[in-house]
Amino acid sequence: MHADMLEQGRAVLAQQPFSVLLGARLDVFEPGRAQLSVDLSGQLLQQHGFVHGGVLAYLADNALTYAGGSVLGGVLTSEFKINYLRPARDAEQLVAVATVVGSGKTQAVCRCDIFLQNQADRKICAAAQGTIRKVE
Amino acid sequence: MHADMLEQGRAVLAQQPFSVLLGARLDVFEPGRAQLSVDLSGQLLQQHGFVHGGVLAYLADNALTYAGGSVLGGVLTSEFKINYLRPARDAEQLVAVATVVGSGKTQAVCRCDIFLQNQADRKICAAAQGTIRKVE
Amino acid sequence: MHADMLEQGRAVLAQQPFSVLLGARLDVFEPGRAQLSVDLSGQLLQQHGFVHGGVLAYLADNALTYAGGSVLGGVLTSEFKINYLRPARDAEQLVAVATVVGSGKTQAVCRCDIFLQNQADRKICAAAQGTIRKVE
Amino acid sequence: MHADMLEQGRAVLAQQPFSVLLGARLDVFEPGRAQLSVDLSGQLLQQHGFVHGGVLAYLADNALTYAGGSVLGGVLTSEFKINYLRPARDAEQLVAVATVVGSGKTQAVCRCDIFLQNQADRKICAAAQGTIRKVE
Repeated sequence: MHADMLEQGRAVLAQQPFSVLLGARLDVFEPGRAQLSVDLSGQLLQQHGFVHGGVLAYLADNALTYAGGSVLGGVLTSEFKINYLRPARDAEQLVAVATVVGSGKTQAVCRCDIFLQNQADRKICAAAQGTIRKVE
Repeated sequence: MHADMLEQGRAVLAQQPFSVLLGARLDVFEPGRAQLSVDLSGQLLQQHGFVHGGVLAYLADNALTYAGGSVLGGVLTSEFKINYLRPARDAEQLVAVATVVGSGKTQAVCRCDIFLQNQADRKICAAAQGTIRKVE
Repeated sequence: MHADMLEQGRAVLAQQPFSVLLGARLDVFEPGRAQLSVDLSGQLLQQHGFVHGGVLAYLADNALTYAGGSVLGGVLTSEFKINYLRPARDAEQLVAVATVVGSGKTQAVCRCDIFLQNQADRKICAAAQGTIRKVE
Repeated sequence: MHADMLEQGRAVLAQQPFSVLLGARLDVFEPGRAQLSVDLSGQLLQQHGFVHGGVLAYLADNALTYAGGSVLGGVLTSEFKINYLRPARDAEQLVAVATVVGSGKTQAVCRCDIFLQNQADRKICAAAQGTIRKVE
């Protein structure tokens, strides 16, 4: 059962004022995998009415960090890159799914896909990859 | 004189609800160069009291985009990567300085340094590089 | 049948002197997917007896480009990033598998996994992600 | 005097069969900075007569690693990204200049510019950024 792990992960998220400000939720947190989501809202947009790239970058950063933390414990994000695939709009939620590609004692390499979600329909809108490092 | 350019850039920033939410300011906007800053505040932090990586990623994304836009006009961010160099804390402001490394007709490659600023003192805390594409 | 596509892809590879120098083979080339491989040999190593990171970066670059080209036609590589997961040694071959994550009219975002292969056994040793652009 | 350091760096390069295969030279190796170069030759090209992206990626990887090693000692490359700015042709040499952006006890973040060089004339053709980690 990963229920305790999810509960702990959510407690950490609740301690991140910036995540609270953006309304982020932790949906999945289990060994090797994490999922974060946010509802689209007016305050997350840029000047053309799309979700600001910085919101997607936040989601990638935090989902990658949770994925790495799921196998390493206390961690920090070392680096990541993100590719934007399409404008983020016309969706109810943004859903970021991150998985561990490979990990050692001190760091994990993770990938994250960010989806535009409308009910059961998902379209990928960004893809990220990065390094999460164990805090010593 | 780049005063008009800066004024226009600030008008765009004022139309980005997410940038307004984070309190971002456009300090410099001239051909090949842009500078954004935000004051540190409680709502930008993560659970250890450092600025959340997502805030730094937002600054990198937006500063890179302004730098690319300064030579290309209407643009969108194609991709970027960011390396975190030190925890972001003990500073009055975060200052993101982005410059164009090279540009063609349709895209520009830009770099961004993000500094922890206390009065005249600056320490680099993140470094980014990315591609900005002209909107056709 | 993608036999013609594979044959054409191999003809292009044979026209790349650098790929010939490294002994690269195109194993798979179909819409959305490409696989390149090289046999480990003394000339590909660095000073500790591991395959040089530059060889892995070459494989990532070329496999990503083939994957993008499989959906876009004539292409060039815009950018990519690579994470090294473990030293590349103790293998018969390096196998790079690249797939398209998302594509539009002018560019494709692709990912690549590079494996250390010994007969049927595969271990991932590097992970890459990048942008391939259609040549206009 | 960094003459000893340069000599040691060159001895390491001479022990890298892949660097010898490509004809790489170490021009500069001093604290925080490294420069590698290769002469353009037929074997480094792709099918259109440009230098293969894999050669540029090799140069970025190795120059970044030397720059990181100049401040950390024994190192390995953790990850890097590279943006290609223009086709690499019509030059006598490729020159890769890497510098340390920031470093701690265990890793350094470095940047690298790769130039097309003709006598005294230099044009940038690629830009890279990555993480170099101390071997423990």
